[in-house]
Amino acid sequence: MSANRKEIKDLGEFGLIDHLTQSFSLNQTSSVLGVGDDAAVIDIGEEYLLLSTDMLVEGIHFDLGYTPLHHLGYKSVAVNVSDIAAMNGTPQQITVSIAISNRFSVEALEQLYQGMKAACDNYNIDLVGGDTTSSTSGLIISISVVGRVAKNKLVKRKGAQANDIICVSGDLGAAYMGLQILEREKAVFLSNPEMQPNLEVYDYLVGRILKPEARTDIVFDLAEKELLPTAMMDISDGLASELFHLCKQNNLGFRIYEDKIPLDNQTYETAIEFILDPITCALNGGEDYELLFSIPQSEFEKVKMHADIHMIGYFHADVKERIMVTKQGNITPIQAQGWTHF
Amino acid sequence: MSANRKEIKDLGEFGLIDHLTQSFSLNQTSSVLGVGDDAAVIDIGEEYLLLSTDMLVEGIHFDLGYTPLHHLGYKSVAVNVSDIAAMNGTPQQITVSIAISNRFSVEALEQLYQGMKAACDNYNIDLVGGDTTSSTSGLIISISVVGRVAKNKLVKRKGAQANDIICVSGDLGAAYMGLQILEREKAVFLSNPEMQPNLEVYDYLVGRILKPEARTDIVFDLAEKELLPTAMMDISDGLASELFHLCKQNNLGFRIYEDKIPLDNQTYETAIEFILDPITCALNGGEDYELLFSIPQSEFEKVKMHADIHMIGYFHADVKERIMVTKQGNITPIQAQGWTHF
Repeated sequence: MSANRKEIKDLGEFGLIDHLTQSFSLNQTSSVLGVGDDAAVIDIGEEYLLLSTDMLVEGIHFDLGYTPLHHLGYKSVAVNVSDIAAMNGTPQQITVSIAISNRFSVEALEQLYQGMKAACDNYNIDLVGGDTTSSTSGLIISISVVGRVAKNKLVKRKGAQANDIICVSGDLGAAYMGLQILEREKAVFLSNPEMQPNLEVYDYLVGRILKPEARTDIVFDLAEKELLPTAMMDISDGLASELFHLCKQNNLGFRIYEDKIPLDNQTYETAIEFILDPITCALNGGEDYELLFSIPQSEFEKVKMHADIHMIGYFHADVKERIMVTKQGNITPIQAQGWTHF
Repeated sequence: MSANRKEIKDLGEFGLIDHLTQSFSLNQTSSVLGVGDDAAVIDIGEEYLLLSTDMLVEGIHFDLGYTPLHHLGYKSVAVNVSDIAAMNGTPQQITVSIAISNRFSVEALEQLYQGMKAACDNYNIDLVGGDTTSSTSGLIISISVVGRVAKNKLVKRKGAQANDIICVSGDLGAAYMGLQILEREKAVFLSNPEMQPNLEVYDYLVGRILKPEARTDIVFDLAEKELLPTAMMDISDGLASELFHLCKQNNLGFRIYEDKIPLDNQTYETAIEFILDPITCALNGGEDYELLFSIPQSEFEKVKMHADIHMIGYFHADVKERIMVTKQGNITPIQAQGWTHF
């Protein structure tokens, strides 16, 4: 190993995939969109096929010390479905590959697959293929998902215009706080196994990290309202990080308003309990799997009455404008911290 | 862990995936074929879409002690392409997910992706998506591949009839012998690092294990000859094991002829050197990625002149008939040993 070897962490996850795939080009006429969005887009004639894949690694993405296997199965499907929702599409099929060490029993795997089945039933998708193999250490789950979208309904990360309204579904930061709760209870348990965790008061937060839902319901509602976002992605790495992605793709800046960022009460109170700033949790906490999208100002009325879509600001023509207006009316520049697994 | 916990190894790889997915059903009208063939089949209107996925795990499927990363990249794409070829299809797109520990440098990953790019160029497929994440231990590569096949050209594992001729492409057992060579040289190197391995005389065998090719050329030739196999799969776990799969799917037995099983001279001579029976290596060695298929007897003339397709026997109406006729004319029952990673 030479002194000037390049380290993965210097590139980061997104820099790394960009770097490794830069020499690849799209040569098939059916390849409409490749690396760099929530899903690849493949032309199948009448419609577009959407294809996405995600890998979950024990010790990196989940801790089996506090993650029930059926929840893990459900989540591993949901996070893939979320990528299809982020393209405004409908999921239809998945393949599941798992690598497992022989410390897992068949019963444990049955629980994992029961969770996957519950997700398949809920999102109306079929498990059509897969692979099981052994692992030298932990559990690895790799899922690929196939979905469809009408050609004129595809929504990419690219497409937002200056002054488009920025919207998010649901609320943010809850999964991050749920993780803090689980980590704290684990630490308490490890120091004193007699202690029984009391998670009931945090049930919403813990549910958000262990068993998130893909917002296919929002995709449905957008179609009902005949509202086509100009750009969309799902929030897996935190609002700030995802906003930066959209700004980079669209050569835009943004202005968001602190008092418009949706926070659940439990998130707010628990952040205070942990002596954390609730808004920072919402901006930089990951794994919410809510949808972040933009709409033209002319479509304002269509979302105004939707109880679970929140207009948090707008895109700005100045790419250097990346700010939050605080409750006090001050201006704070936003940094994307996001989650990095490296 | 109870005394009667079910162990994964008791089910085996194929039993396990069957067991875990038995409660899943196909509900989407577009899902034509699910778990249990080389690829899933999805109806996309004019054609069928083929979807397959494979996971390669360090320490299980490859040993970086003797596997150059660019070969590993090439192979990881080729084995997926092979699954599309096995359905008589044409590969078009792949997604690549990798999990890596930080002991890998960016340069090492560049080599891996250079190998993948070489395979994409060779098989004329596009890399359209993927994911990189960190791993707590080794390298894990998960690839999904999408292909197409005309609806009337799809070949499944099911479809063979009694008396259909059994064909294999290429030659068998070479990858297995290549692995034996590499394992031997590694052991020699570990006991005396001054020893330089001499792999040149085994170049064909080593190439077969490190850098196998998917037989897309055979799929092309079959189309040229207007020859549609009645059943097909690729040989990843050994001829005997794959023949058993086809027999189970089609409720048939088989009779194959020892003197018809294609062996390269290097495979034969190296097996003798290792005091192994060459035919056993061909029957039970894995990772050849040749195609195993059946054709009606009426199509005999179409393959007779093909230099790289070998007719090794025929399917038998009696499901209990699973035999090899030796060179001496004796009858030997065949057992499927195959490869198991558990």
